[in-house]
Amino acid sequence: MHFKKIVAATVIALPLAAFAQAPAQDAFVLDKRLVARAEALRDAALDDPLAFELVASLTTEVGPRLAGSAGDIAAVRWAEQKLTSLGFSNVRAEPVVVPRWDRGALDIRIAAPYPQPMAGTMLGGSVGTPEQGINATVVRVESLAELQGLDDDAVRGRIVFVDQVMRRVKSGAGYSETVGIRVQGPSVSAAKGALAHVIRSVGTDDHRTGHTGTLVYSKDAAKIPAVALSSPDADMLARQVATGEPVQISLKSSARDLGTAISYNVIGEIPGGSRADEIVLMGAHLDSWDEGTGALDDGAGVAIVTAAAKLIGDLDGKPKRTLRVVLFANEEFGLSGAREYLADYTDQVDNHVIGMEADLGAGAVWEFSSQVADSGLPIIGAIHKLLVPLGIARGNNMAFGGADIGPLRNAGMPVFGIRQDARPYFDYHHTPGDTLDKIVPAELRQNVAVYATAAFIAANIDEDFGRLGTR
Amino acid sequence: MHFKKIVAATVIALPLAAFAQAPAQDAFVLDKRLVARAEALRDAALDDPLAFELVASLTTEVGPRLAGSAGDIAAVRWAEQKLTSLGFSNVRAEPVVVPRWDRGALDIRIAAPYPQPMAGTMLGGSVGTPEQGINATVVRVESLAELQGLDDDAVRGRIVFVDQVMRRVKSGAGYSETVGIRVQGPSVSAAKGALAHVIRSVGTDDHRTGHTGTLVYSKDAAKIPAVALSSPDADMLARQVATGEPVQISLKSSARDLGTAISYNVIGEIPGGSRADEIVLMGAHLDSWDEGTGALDDGAGVAIVTAAAKLIGDLDGKPKRTLRVVLFANEEFGLSGAREYLADYTDQVDNHVIGMEADLGAGAVWEFSSQVADSGLPIIGAIHKLLVPLGIARGNNMAFGGADIGPLRNAGMPVFGIRQDARPYFDYHHTPGDTLDKIVPAELRQNVAVYATAAFIAANIDEDFGRLGTR
Repeated sequence: MHFKKIVAATVIALPLAAFAQAPAQDAFVLDKRLVARAEALRDAALDDPLAFELVASLTTEVGPRLAGSAGDIAAVRWAEQKLTSLGFSNVRAEPVVVPRWDRGALDIRIAAPYPQPMAGTMLGGSVGTPEQGINATVVRVESLAELQGLDDDAVRGRIVFVDQVMRRVKSGAGYSETVGIRVQGPSVSAAKGALAHVIRSVGTDDHRTGHTGTLVYSKDAAKIPAVALSSPDADMLARQVATGEPVQISLKSSARDLGTAISYNVIGEIPGGSRADEIVLMGAHLDSWDEGTGALDDGAGVAIVTAAAKLIGDLDGKPKRTLRVVLFANEEFGLSGAREYLADYTDQVDNHVIGMEADLGAGAVWEFSSQVADSGLPIIGAIHKLLVPLGIARGNNMAFGGADIGPLRNAGMPVFGIRQDARPYFDYHHTPGDTLDKIVPAELRQNVAVYATAAFIAANIDEDFGRLGTR
Repeated sequence: MHFKKIVAATVIALPLAAFAQAPAQDAFVLDKRLVARAEALRDAALDDPLAFELVASLTTEVGPRLAGSAGDIAAVRWAEQKLTSLGFSNVRAEPVVVPRWDRGALDIRIAAPYPQPMAGTMLGGSVGTPEQGINATVVRVESLAELQGLDDDAVRGRIVFVDQVMRRVKSGAGYSETVGIRVQGPSVSAAKGALAHVIRSVGTDDHRTGHTGTLVYSKDAAKIPAVALSSPDADMLARQVATGEPVQISLKSSARDLGTAISYNVIGEIPGGSRADEIVLMGAHLDSWDEGTGALDDGAGVAIVTAAAKLIGDLDGKPKRTLRVVLFANEEFGLSGAREYLADYTDQVDNHVIGMEADLGAGAVWEFSSQVADSGLPIIGAIHKLLVPLGIARGNNMAFGGADIGPLRNAGMPVFGIRQDARPYFDYHHTPGDTLDKIVPAELRQNVAVYATAAFIAANIDEDFGRLGTR
């Protein structure tokens, strides 16, 4: 998952989430036979092994798949083959220009007062150091605001250490509260003359591995190397700073930009019947960071939307609308695939009746929210009724929906907001530990049941969810 | 902690532990004033910050301290200074010859059928590979017994993968059940002609880091490289093997033996009064593995016995017997310090009235067991009564006591067996994640209260615990 999604989701939705209630609405009554079919689909999905098989296959047979890497291309081939063999129609891979970047080797250590090696990882897109490395004194702050408030003199020629701790909460709100130290932080440090930017990982675990993720260099500042320390190493650095003695860090990194490469959005469809030109979009992203195998981020999402659509495709009779599964290229490193999709399908934007995305791991879904026109809210209520047996609350109508479907949403497409428990996700997010064992199969199946049920109803009614205002 | 301790502790003590009861005994009545002083000491220890301060200092100011390394010598200096500044008497560092070994760099990956990098670590003392590395097909087994049962033809020219999962239980019994795959495994594989020995880490976590630990090469087999994979990587390798296709591993390691070095047992005393020549020994080990900072293994133990003895030393009036804190050199890599101590103090062996050791992390103590002469059992019962408010059960009289005090025990010294909850310990044992944040300060203080109370009584009675038979 990419930072923009959570930032926006939180800014828009969270302030109201605490007291969100089902919006006042007229009741929308689903056809009884449709309800019975949806309930049968939902309950069958709870026992269906396909999603776990898919994420096991992707992580085992492909593994790491950073945009532009050989693994990325292997993932595209994997997805084409899987969608085809599962019986999807119109399977295709559509080219997307993506950035290429190499993490290289990293050596970061405390040189004084008490020399210690440290464990961490380069932020995605970071420049490396000169060959001889960077050696400088540390200046520690606890937030981006504190950094911004420092005099340039306190930062110039130093290595900034931003030591902010992320909260571990179900909504994932801790992420948006801290991720700025990773995304904007490096350029804030650089603008003040820092030589490097070091953060406590934006994550909630105690492993000795760092959490990578994109940074965005400002055009107004020098590009300086940026590193995320593991939580135990951030603790160590903080303790040495607390001695009051000057703390020196020695940093070497061979990270480098490698230009661009071609990747692909991979698409497959369950064709509709009477309303075949209307699209129910189910999205996830195929790329992952390079250090883990992308099981939670976003193999789980790929598996959830693919399995949910496949289950619908296996039912007797076509859905009215077309289900389109889009496995986006390069979500992590700048949403290239999402932007390319919008450009490729400009003339179909208004045909996208609803979009939903899975990109927060495999934790159990706890809330069904939406961002639809007021006219669509009664349908949201009717779908939610079908999800109550899965332990799911009704959320508000300010859902963000997902990063990859963001461009379509901004162009007017309504979205479901299917919210998963984010706590396990941010323990492993963007780390080497994002591996298959972190997925609880029963929780993954609950996700499939939610997505399948919601998509099935959306694809089999004649009503729509209206349109959103464009931005 | 070293494997021998757990193996022996389990073999001796665990089969009976499930139905252990307080042995039948005559009541031993402690002097009321002594009981009152012990209770006050115990309760004060529960609030005492010293142990956490000590382990924070050791991990922050010294960090990794593999036997024979610069960190090891820094730890010796640290210990001498700490014991002196805390007011211990007769502080000294006594030389011990220890092995030196360098972990070097490791690259291990699946080359076929689905190429993937893997995360793991060399076993302690392993040889490296030739410069060009080793490439071979994997043969997977689930236990040492299964490996031993294989025909040589099934192993020759291959890389053995022992995929045995350790149980996570309070007693730590899962360790003794699996550690043979690490200790003896490499030579079992080599004797059958294997080129390398790869194991699922002997540990209970899901981190993407391996658990190192000593191996023991047999003189009857070639020395082959030995690697512990992280649990997620062992899962990955197992899944690729399960495809039925031949699985190839590519392995490069620059691990190497570096001969020997000099380290030191560091000793400090709280001198006794009327029975000053009688010793109550409190042991832990100063060395650690190289990848973590040795917070649990065995910074916690160093802190517990040092803080407990210091609290007794701070009381009004000397104890009758001398408390001797011994911070042993090189426990991890062959118990050099423990053996040297026995050789250095042969003439004092019979003066060691009781020994206790702390080397299982910082989890709360749940059982007080012993290995003393029958004549000493009533005193064990009396001490246990003082520990009941700390939530501690009475164990049996077959305690192992500890690896570093093993030579003394085998020479007749009775021991306490103070059993800690081993579950968190084996999540981080011998990994980069063995860092200060894994210690729960309140649990560490409970440990100090137990050790201080038990040592205080042992040092202030006129009776002893008898002697054990020698082995």
